[in-house]
Amino acid sequence: MSGGLEEALRSAVGAAHVLVDADLRAAYETDWTRRFTGAARCVVRPASTAEVVAVVRACAAAGVPIVVQGGNTGLVGAGVPTGGEVLVSLARLTSVEPVDAVEAQVTVGAGVTLEKLQAHARTAGLDFGVDLAARSSATVGGMIATNAGGIRVLRHGSMRAQVTGLEAVLADGTVLTRLDGLAKDNTGYDLTQLVAGSEGTLAIVTRARLRLVPLLPERAAALVAVAGTEAALELLAAARARLATLSAAEIFYPEGLELVRAYRQLPAPFAEPAGAYVVLECAARTDPTDDILELLSDCAAVEDATVASDRAGLERLWSYREAHTEAISTAGIPTKLDVCVPLGELTALVAELPATVASVAPKARVITFGHLNEGNLHLNVLDAGEHAEDVTDAVLRLVAAHRGTISSEHGVGRAKAPWLSLSRTPEEIAAMRRIKAALDPDGILNPGVLLPA
Amino acid sequence: MSGGLEEALRSAVGAAHVLVDADLRAAYETDWTRRFTGAARCVVRPASTAEVVAVVRACAAAGVPIVVQGGNTGLVGAGVPTGGEVLVSLARLTSVEPVDAVEAQVTVGAGVTLEKLQAHARTAGLDFGVDLAARSSATVGGMIATNAGGIRVLRHGSMRAQVTGLEAVLADGTVLTRLDGLAKDNTGYDLTQLVAGSEGTLAIVTRARLRLVPLLPERAAALVAVAGTEAALELLAAARARLATLSAAEIFYPEGLELVRAYRQLPAPFAEPAGAYVVLECAARTDPTDDILELLSDCAAVEDATVASDRAGLERLWSYREAHTEAISTAGIPTKLDVCVPLGELTALVAELPATVASVAPKARVITFGHLNEGNLHLNVLDAGEHAEDVTDAVLRLVAAHRGTISSEHGVGRAKAPWLSLSRTPEEIAAMRRIKAALDPDGILNPGVLLPA
Repeated sequence: MSGGLEEALRSAVGAAHVLVDADLRAAYETDWTRRFTGAARCVVRPASTAEVVAVVRACAAAGVPIVVQGGNTGLVGAGVPTGGEVLVSLARLTSVEPVDAVEAQVTVGAGVTLEKLQAHARTAGLDFGVDLAARSSATVGGMIATNAGGIRVLRHGSMRAQVTGLEAVLADGTVLTRLDGLAKDNTGYDLTQLVAGSEGTLAIVTRARLRLVPLLPERAAALVAVAGTEAALELLAAARARLATLSAAEIFYPEGLELVRAYRQLPAPFAEPAGAYVVLECAARTDPTDDILELLSDCAAVEDATVASDRAGLERLWSYREAHTEAISTAGIPTKLDVCVPLGELTALVAELPATVASVAPKARVITFGHLNEGNLHLNVLDAGEHAEDVTDAVLRLVAAHRGTISSEHGVGRAKAPWLSLSRTPEEIAAMRRIKAALDPDGILNPGVLLPA
Repeated sequence: MSGGLEEALRSAVGAAHVLVDADLRAAYETDWTRRFTGAARCVVRPASTAEVVAVVRACAAAGVPIVVQGGNTGLVGAGVPTGGEVLVSLARLTSVEPVDAVEAQVTVGAGVTLEKLQAHARTAGLDFGVDLAARSSATVGGMIATNAGGIRVLRHGSMRAQVTGLEAVLADGTVLTRLDGLAKDNTGYDLTQLVAGSEGTLAIVTRARLRLVPLLPERAAALVAVAGTEAALELLAAARARLATLSAAEIFYPEGLELVRAYRQLPAPFAEPAGAYVVLECAARTDPTDDILELLSDCAAVEDATVASDRAGLERLWSYREAHTEAISTAGIPTKLDVCVPLGELTALVAELPATVASVAPKARVITFGHLNEGNLHLNVLDAGEHAEDVTDAVLRLVAAHRGTISSEHGVGRAKAPWLSLSRTPEEIAAMRRIKAALDPDGILNPGVLLPA
């Protein structure tokens, strides 16, 4: 790297936090799925907003692009370098302010993990509205940049719905600060929501003001066997209509169940196999078990069901769903697609998937699971071999034909950028480019991510 | 007006919908409060998105600015001309698509009134999440442009939280279309949320995809007498902690109660006068009356209370709160301020207001009411005489000193633009200007609104 930039970065964050050696950089240069990797010019670890500003200014002055990284749990290659960028890790931005119990909000640094945030909220008798399996590594900044989802979106909305304000650094080092967390504030453009979900291309999030939700101590869940997707939707409709305390509605299929059972050595959940499996969970101040039981006994779509409300039972029941990601990862390097269609299209999409995949990759397997309430399926394609790109193309086109989106939770990143036009119109993409150019005219922040180069 | 532009507009929307005569324009040129008025070059009433595009292109080609108007119920002068603009009324964009009961969404035109939207949702057994007193006139487009609030924000969030997508026309006639209403869609910048709350300065909303909420048939409300603001907050905290079905928490004070009683010929609600009055409402699938009664009997802040759950009783109880706006309007032309502070600052703000107002307008009266849950007070200053601007300045500075915002629901418009810097930092305002310039480089849309000229 050029001596001038290196010196400026060391002066900004201290020599110990500018990682130039390949072995020190390595942990930052490959993503969790092992699909994306690249060599950074160096890794920089600022510990404060002022240090982030100094780093951004140094890179901008040198004309060297930046890749921003949180917990490196992203799935679309948005947080790893392609070659020669300065990788800015926000992992040291771990400030945690006291919970404001009156407003039910808290301000934390971008590098705080979801797990730490949850624990902090719970000490105040509150909870955080988003939960996902990568909670021990995923950071607040990364979750905002990708607008993370997870299993509680049904109840509390996605990550952006939790963000009442943020502090972010623009490409020229300008700091936008909006951490008041006012419940209502109609004084101009919602820059917070513009930055949320922009995948590090408009600004670097350094701190966030987050909404907290009531801690609901009583939980009850059911694992339900149904005939297939259509029956699952029937059960969902009944649950949405009758269970005011519904907090999750997940779906998975026999192929995934078999992988999970083998990986975790779990027994079959039911005596008979089923076409699909639904997990329903309710959370409330008082035990919601009776409500779930009543629903299950009334709903014709239910073929069999098991209900749990104690901690061990809940964990056992949820493990059939939550172990999917690890079980799949153990079986190979999957091509991960994360799509969402209107609920009315879900049955047809699931039915057409196998033939669509087989047409381009005859030996591939698709493991499907996801968030039933939002029509959001995680499609994990194994054994696609050299046809991985063809599978991606064919499946994303199928999804678009069913009026769906190519990314519901993971973001576009580098992985989906070539297909952006399946989900956004040319006019929308042009408007996005105008906004990108207005805030980052030299294209310093995450070039190649989200907007196709 | 120039013959060329006039001809282009007539060709765009038909001669009958280009209003040039002063008497035809008049109804559009003064706002509801009678504080803002100006002469438009003409009023144009397009009936479709294509007609809006043609109007925008004609104005852009002629270099003539546009003022956008919905139901003309705005309170900050954002929808009335200052002189010479083409006023584009969206009142004819009244398309209403069938309710999508599976997704609990609906697509409607920008000119559809809130009342019509509510009735439409209810025919499908659903409801709309935002409600406000101007429901018979306020339109969907205007409510999105200002991110309207109202009494149900506590339960369902502000207007922007109901908008899953929209169709909007940019200053160059480009149409952004995003009406899929997917529950999750992480494919780029959230242009929908950028346009929401931008007060017509970035784009003209022509259609919207809106989230609907369950229709909750059982309601119960309490009107509660408390000692003052601090006791009201104590009651609120108890209600939030214990009433999962809480749907509204409003506050008003003795001065407002007296005006309302005189205007509506209402009896005193309680035998003894109180320092403040709180309305709590719960909405649920089963009668929530017992929950409210239990809370009232346990909460030490309650001095007296009356509870209703039948339609007539609810209407009578709510009228003490809802008749405020009309009662005040009958008493004079108020200077309307709409502020929000953290709940921890609310008591001090209310206590300091009278002296602050008296210091600049000795004869003025302040009638205060609002949405307790969000710390959102509507301050109506009567009899300020020639000191109206001084009152605005003094009160908004007081609010800012209490870490509050100069607009929580009404928007900035023309009325509050000079004070924008009390709520947004110079860096935020600069970023807003960059976005405005990127999407509307010639400043055609609502110039002078929101961003100070």
